[in-house]
Amino acid sequence: MKILLIGASGTIGSVVLEEMKKDAEIITAGIENSDITVDTTSPESIKQMYEQVGTVDAIVNTAGIEHYGFLKEMTPEQNQIAVQSKLSGQVNLVLLGMDALSDNGSFTLTTGILMDDPIVKGASAAMANGGVRAFVKSAAIEMPRGLRINHVSPTILEVSVEKNGHLFEGFEPVSSRRIGLAYRKSILGAQTGEGIYVY
Amino acid sequence: MKILLIGASGTIGSVVLEEMKKDAEIITAGIENSDITVDTTSPESIKQMYEQVGTVDAIVNTAGIEHYGFLKEMTPEQNQIAVQSKLSGQVNLVLLGMDALSDNGSFTLTTGILMDDPIVKGASAAMANGGVRAFVKSAAIEMPRGLRINHVSPTILEVSVEKNGHLFEGFEPVSSRRIGLAYRKSILGAQTGEGIYVY
Ligand SMILES: NC(=O)c1ccc[n+]([C@@H]2O[C@H](COP(=O)([O-])OP(=O)(O)OC[C@H]3O[C@@H](n4cnc5c(N)ncnc54)[C@H](OP(=O)(O)O)[C@@H]3O)[C@@H](O)[C@H]2O)c1
Ligand SMILES: NC(=O)c1ccc[n+]([C@@H]2O[C@H](COP(=O)([O-])OP(=O)(O)OC[C@H]3O[C@@H](n4cnc5c(N)ncnc54)[C@H](OP(=O)(O)O)[C@@H]3O)[C@@H](O)[C@H]2O)c1
Repeated sequence: MKILLIGASGTIGSVVLEEMKKDAEIITAGIENSDITVDTTSPESIKQMYEQVGTVDAIVNTAGIEHYGFLKEMTPEQNQIAVQSKLSGQVNLVLLGMDALSDNGSFTLTTGILMDDPIVKGASAAMANGGVRAFVKSAAIEMPRGLRINHVSPTILEVSVEKNGHLFEGFEPVSSRRIGLAYRKSILGAQTGEGIYVY
Repeated sequence: MKILLIGASGTIGSVVLEEMKKDAEIITAGIENSDITVDTTSPESIKQMYEQVGTVDAIVNTAGIEHYGFLKEMTPEQNQIAVQSKLSGQVNLVLLGMDALSDNGSFTLTTGILMDDPIVKGASAAMANGGVRAFVKSAAIEMPRGLRINHVSPTILEVSVEKNGHLFEGFEPVSSRRIGLAYRKSILGAQTGEGIYVY
């Protein structure tokens, strides 16, 4: 099995890499520190990545950034960060990536708890997550050749608490093990159009 | 009561205008055929609209377009239509519009059934709807001065069946009356962060 993992050098990407590396050959992609360089905010860059990669059995994306800020102070430009990276970036990985998947292959995208359980400063992230969730549900009914598509929606990881815990007061952080298993389920399971919620 | 209605000349906008005109002074906005000209895909244009409008008690948006096409053929550029118009356009109406609302005023945005009940060719619309829904839920917890925000999620209207019914096979079209009431509920009710589903 061959997996293309975009965002592999990040917190969640590292968890997925650790979880899947015994079962699959993993091609990593990201802005830097990866086998292949890609900027998911650029459709051109995504196309070039797929040209280099050839065919894989699973495409997993854990890349994506968003602006956290008070709603009252948020500018359209700041909101665009999540729109371009977490939302359009992930949608474009799918629109441009179907031909890179072998029959019955799968996409696994990343959303997050903020669409279900909002926090102050989280409206832009919530928006991107909600857009990806609805896209996944709808795209699933049109996937050719048995391709599947799901998203994993994590709450805050234990390993991210030191950096971001102040934004997530009262949230119960989850172990990296549970996050890894959620991606494993999406990659090796048979469901499609679903969210795998790790809350 | 004063309402700013963006998209007033459209199918749903006309319904809202009809429903609310006895209870409120309505300022209409849209690309053309309206009191005020605005292109919601441009933050600059939105700012200019709000400068002209002054203060209102409710901001209702029924404007928004999206590309309908097979997932396999959809390009990133085509997906951008809904991203810019239905998603970012609506988010930016909120980010730039809070100061235009009087205390306890409200935003009412428009989503749609495709985020919950997908159709072939509807993935981009679903994405935009889902993004707006999650944004509304999150933005509600940060609204200043008692401002409220909701979205109305219509299924296909009876009056839209002739034009778009072929995309919505098996969906039960709803009356314009029910749609008008949903916007009325959002404008004159007290709930916030909610979706009003007219399915
Ligand atoms: N960590 C959590 O607790 C948590 C919880 C819920 C949801 N999430 C979501 O999961 C996603 C990843 O989170 P994370 O904590 O793993 O983030 P992270 O540690 O900052 O890692 C982000 C990864 O994405 C890559 N990346 C960023 N922008 C990119 C772009 N335009 N093109 C290609 N690669 C790009 C980075 O690559 P380089 O290192 O090469 O720049 C890095 O590998 C985010 O959307 C986040 O909201 C995270
Ligand atoms: N009709 C339905 O059955 C139905 C069901 C569910 C959801 N919806 C959603 O509801 C929304 C409106 O639908 P509709 O059927 O009423 O559409 P419509 O009849 O095509 O009307 C669209 C309105 O939006 C305006 N508009 C379009 N782009 C704009 C922009 N960039 N800036 C400012 N105004 C803009 C148009 O103004 P001009 O006329 O001046 O160009 C028009 O007034 C859409 O997002 C649609 O997906 C519709």
